[in-house]
Amino acid sequence: MSEENRPIVAFLGPQGSYTHQATLDAFNHSDYVISPQVTIEDVFTAVQSGDAYRGVIPFENSSNGSVVFTLDLFADLHGKYPDILVCGESYVAVKHCLLGHAPSSETASTTFPAAVSPARPIADISNVKRLYSHPQAWGQCKEFLNTYLKHAERNDVSSTSKAAELVAQDKSGESAALSSIIAADMFDLDVLAKTINDRVENTTRFLVIRRKDSSTPPESIPSSPKSSATTATNGEQRNWKTLITFTVDQANPGALAHCLSAFEKYGLNLTSINTRPSGVENWNYVFFVELKGRKEEEGEEGKVNGALGELGRVCRGYRWLGSWENRLTAA
Amino acid sequence: MSEENRPIVAFLGPQGSYTHQATLDAFNHSDYVISPQVTIEDVFTAVQSGDAYRGVIPFENSSNGSVVFTLDLFADLHGKYPDILVCGESYVAVKHCLLGHAPSSETASTTFPAAVSPARPIADISNVKRLYSHPQAWGQCKEFLNTYLKHAERNDVSSTSKAAELVAQDKSGESAALSSIIAADMFDLDVLAKTINDRVENTTRFLVIRRKDSSTPPESIPSSPKSSATTATNGEQRNWKTLITFTVDQANPGALAHCLSAFEKYGLNLTSINTRPSGVENWNYVFFVELKGRKEEEGEEGKVNGALGELGRVCRGYRWLGSWENRLTAA
Repeated sequence: MSEENRPIVAFLGPQGSYTHQATLDAFNHSDYVISPQVTIEDVFTAVQSGDAYRGVIPFENSSNGSVVFTLDLFADLHGKYPDILVCGESYVAVKHCLLGHAPSSETASTTFPAAVSPARPIADISNVKRLYSHPQAWGQCKEFLNTYLKHAERNDVSSTSKAAELVAQDKSGESAALSSIIAADMFDLDVLAKTINDRVENTTRFLVIRRKDSSTPPESIPSSPKSSATTATNGEQRNWKTLITFTVDQANPGALAHCLSAFEKYGLNLTSINTRPSGVENWNYVFFVELKGRKEEEGEEGKVNGALGELGRVCRGYRWLGSWENRLTAA
Repeated sequence: MSEENRPIVAFLGPQGSYTHQATLDAFNHSDYVISPQVTIEDVFTAVQSGDAYRGVIPFENSSNGSVVFTLDLFADLHGKYPDILVCGESYVAVKHCLLGHAPSSETASTTFPAAVSPARPIADISNVKRLYSHPQAWGQCKEFLNTYLKHAERNDVSSTSKAAELVAQDKSGESAALSSIIAADMFDLDVLAKTINDRVENTTRFLVIRRKDSSTPPESIPSSPKSSATTATNGEQRNWKTLITFTVDQANPGALAHCLSAFEKYGLNLTSINTRPSGVENWNYVFFVELKGRKEEEGEEGKVNGALGELGRVCRGYRWLGSWENRLTAA
């Protein structure tokens, strides 16, 4: 297919980010134009406007929890993204490394053996005074940072990849980045410590978004071509997830319990719940609920429709944000 | 009182931070040793060990939501803080100012009248080329920055106070910080513009923590001496808040709804709910619930005790994290 005919998949860049990896896991590079965006909001805008066929954004990390910027965009307080729906997900194992310039006497770090646990430096880091990373990474590497770099200044930047890029520019050896091993290659940095995250099974979940009126699998182009073939044949309809937001009358005791009972009544298992400031009034919240199940026009899966009908009677307002196939193995 | 005899109040530093302001609002400087800590965890450690009599930490911002580091310390997955209880709260209006070095011909900025809305510079800022602040502040001051400083370079630093410190070192007048008014005093900077945040009602809530076995008001030293006198006399017992964490069996549909029903049964109004990764198993969560009410040994306030008994029967595990007087006016 020529570049002009290939659908665009927008993702949170830059190149070399974990979102980039998630995007390549879900979309064949040869069938799509994979297009990096500066912010998560830019991905939403590209999909809402129809410029991009799909968007890929980080949603949740197993150690650090939700990505609040993404939640706020789904909450859509200003009505800018009325047509955005989630249509897929992708999981990527996050292995942060400490990248920088090792003192010249040190052996090149890539020759070092595999990660040790608990992580410790594999090069001299006594000169490191400034750290750069995405804000979420600090919380994922607490033990290592508290042990070895407690007094280093922490600088938040827009991505772990950007952090590596900045550190590459400072040859003094005083700067280091919490970033991915692919960024070490990309910016020619030394690995000063490997897999420094507290939990080695640290995983980030990414969501694939589409416009409500865009084509959906199995018509034309599948959303996750690398795995849809197998899932289509086994006909496993029940392994789906659904995302819903709602608001409640917070003056009413039990309002939240009533809303959640709507899902219980239909036997729907809630897999997560989140809150974000409503933006309308201080100390009021938008609730996010994710559940096992699929909203459909008709058929056995009417449970989600039933629960939404019930929810509509007890909440102040709600929005269905899409149903998609579960990609979490052993879930 | 001599310094040695005064109880220590540990807070998230550095000096000049909004947490510092919250601490000074709640504790008289002359009765306590106000001690800045590097991390929120250091505050927990100081209180748990008994080194500090009280600790003050940020908990939630009205625009940005929960402080996840604080939630994780309350979740206490490694059992390091078994004796920590919340005993008070403090609200601080976040009013970012633009701080820097005004051209020498200008009048000292502290003589200027109150903030104007929409905010505009009260000194010549045409020389400002570089801005420093905590990453959260850029999003809170969009209008002012887009109007007056669209092309200035933005540098993320670890706190608004740190930003002011850096700007104080650059006498060229080309650097400015988005920081607090107390930081202007502390680092001898000019206020170039006042209250530049988009939402003037932007507020952060701080919690005061204590050790379970430490003295509590009204015995010996009140936790919030500046306001306890009035609240003690009006005898308003019902305007209390309680924080609870619990875990559920996530394989069981409706487990969360059952837990929340325990509070509804006793007519307790939930004011917020939060989740954080459980740390034990990926995609499992610890739930945080805050409610209006007070856990007591006996008496009319047995509602919270009743709900906790009920919760204990349906959840996997729970912990009471303290009850304290509500300080939110009009709540």
